[in-house]
Amino acid sequence: MPKSASIEDEITQAAIERLEQGADGRLRDIMISLTRHLHGFIREIEPTEEEWLAAIRFLTETGKKCDENRQEFILLSDTLGASMLIDAINNRKPSGATESSVLGPFYREGAPDYENGADLAEGETSGERVLVSGKVIDLDGAPIAGAVLDIWQTAPDAIYAAQDTSGTSFNLCGRLTTGDDGRYWFRTRKPVSYTVPGDGPVGAMLKAAGRHNWRPAHIHFMLSADGYETLVTQLFTDDDPYLGTDAVFGVKDSLVVHYDKADEGLRLDHDFVMTAAA
Amino acid sequence: MPKSASIEDEITQAAIERLEQGADGRLRDIMISLTRHLHGFIREIEPTEEEWLAAIRFLTETGKKCDENRQEFILLSDTLGASMLIDAINNRKPSGATESSVLGPFYREGAPDYENGADLAEGETSGERVLVSGKVIDLDGAPIAGAVLDIWQTAPDAIYAAQDTSGTSFNLCGRLTTGDDGRYWFRTRKPVSYTVPGDGPVGAMLKAAGRHNWRPAHIHFMLSADGYETLVTQLFTDDDPYLGTDAVFGVKDSLVVHYDKADEGLRLDHDFVMTAAA
Repeated sequence: MPKSASIEDEITQAAIERLEQGADGRLRDIMISLTRHLHGFIREIEPTEEEWLAAIRFLTETGKKCDENRQEFILLSDTLGASMLIDAINNRKPSGATESSVLGPFYREGAPDYENGADLAEGETSGERVLVSGKVIDLDGAPIAGAVLDIWQTAPDAIYAAQDTSGTSFNLCGRLTTGDDGRYWFRTRKPVSYTVPGDGPVGAMLKAAGRHNWRPAHIHFMLSADGYETLVTQLFTDDDPYLGTDAVFGVKDSLVVHYDKADEGLRLDHDFVMTAAA
Repeated sequence: MPKSASIEDEITQAAIERLEQGADGRLRDIMISLTRHLHGFIREIEPTEEEWLAAIRFLTETGKKCDENRQEFILLSDTLGASMLIDAINNRKPSGATESSVLGPFYREGAPDYENGADLAEGETSGERVLVSGKVIDLDGAPIAGAVLDIWQTAPDAIYAAQDTSGTSFNLCGRLTTGDDGRYWFRTRKPVSYTVPGDGPVGAMLKAAGRHNWRPAHIHFMLSADGYETLVTQLFTDDDPYLGTDAVFGVKDSLVVHYDKADEGLRLDHDFVMTAAA
């Protein structure tokens, strides 16, 4: 049977017109764009009624999987590359500025303040020792004094403090403040690769699509300083097997860093370049 | 700040390549198309991080609202015109055939078989009396004998039998079978306009978009006959105030019918044209 192009076009047109006749404003623009793209997707793949029902079930199960400790729709957004795209759109930076990456689900507010030189992994007995250091600078290379680095990463067992169910752990989390020279430095253990949750509908989708659910090892940083845009980013280790296939597309070339051998374990040097607030 | 076109393009490209490198088959095609259209939507509206989080919350609440008696994601699909578009794609018919409309959430299998002439609204004391009649024919106008019409509609209080929580009501539901002449006829009460659920996230979305949640009055029909494509459709009354603004876009011009005044209430004559099975 050939397409009844006119009937199908009329449905899309009617759905858009209904919104055009509705309330003005940002929501109208969003809904019209959503409708146009959703209908475009449907026209392109021409889902059967069984496929449509499978999609309804997938979305329903994704909602059911969400609770206060689990956000399966954010995981879906992450694994479709949507979160990173939205991050990029909201963090357009001039050339030379440190690039952003997503905040992710494991940021826990209220990490303790440390002096530079502190060991964020105190009490950890495994994992490679690292001294991380560098400067926080502006686009002209001038040091930024008083910049706060909020840092979080996996423990050697691939667990974040935020996954601790007691809700109080700040293991491998901490805040440092730069001095007049813009320098920061701290000790930690090298972060490790880990998996995003694979036991829900998104995990099943990844599996069916022939994808894994690993993230390459990284350290998260959120940098804030008076007069500068807050910078949320991640530094990825350059020897990670999942560097090219991050399940959530968080890797950018400029954020891949090398750990040098040092007398006592490893050493990572990295400068962060912040941009002035608008 | 100007767009960092290359970074944003790279994210979309990476998300698509990951799928291209994954498992072959229909799911891959669906996921690639979904990714392309989802990213296109995001690029067009450039959501803020707050808007992205609002979308995550909306989807989560929509999932939470679903239970065995309520399917909020189907309602979302319906109110975006997606269900009717998929219905149209799956029911392309030659000119002259009766057009389809969506099954909707209120079909309950197992309606009682009646003789032609039966009153499906027996026991109802309000609503306008109607005699509905017509023929079931093929594209050449020849009668189809033994066609089964499965019929359901609102009661005068705007409630479907399927909304009865006991799960057993078949009020204003029934199955008729055509004789050798292809004719069918039954008595009922004129259907009334009603609202789709407005107390969930989809209702809130409609309200925010300046849309109502009414459906114009209609009778549902599912016709089946050996050797013919099953036909799921609705007949809409031509004097309904919501005819032009059906919340779920189910109305097609050819499905709008006129109720004539008759000696005893109203009379509706309508022939259904079925297409041969492929």
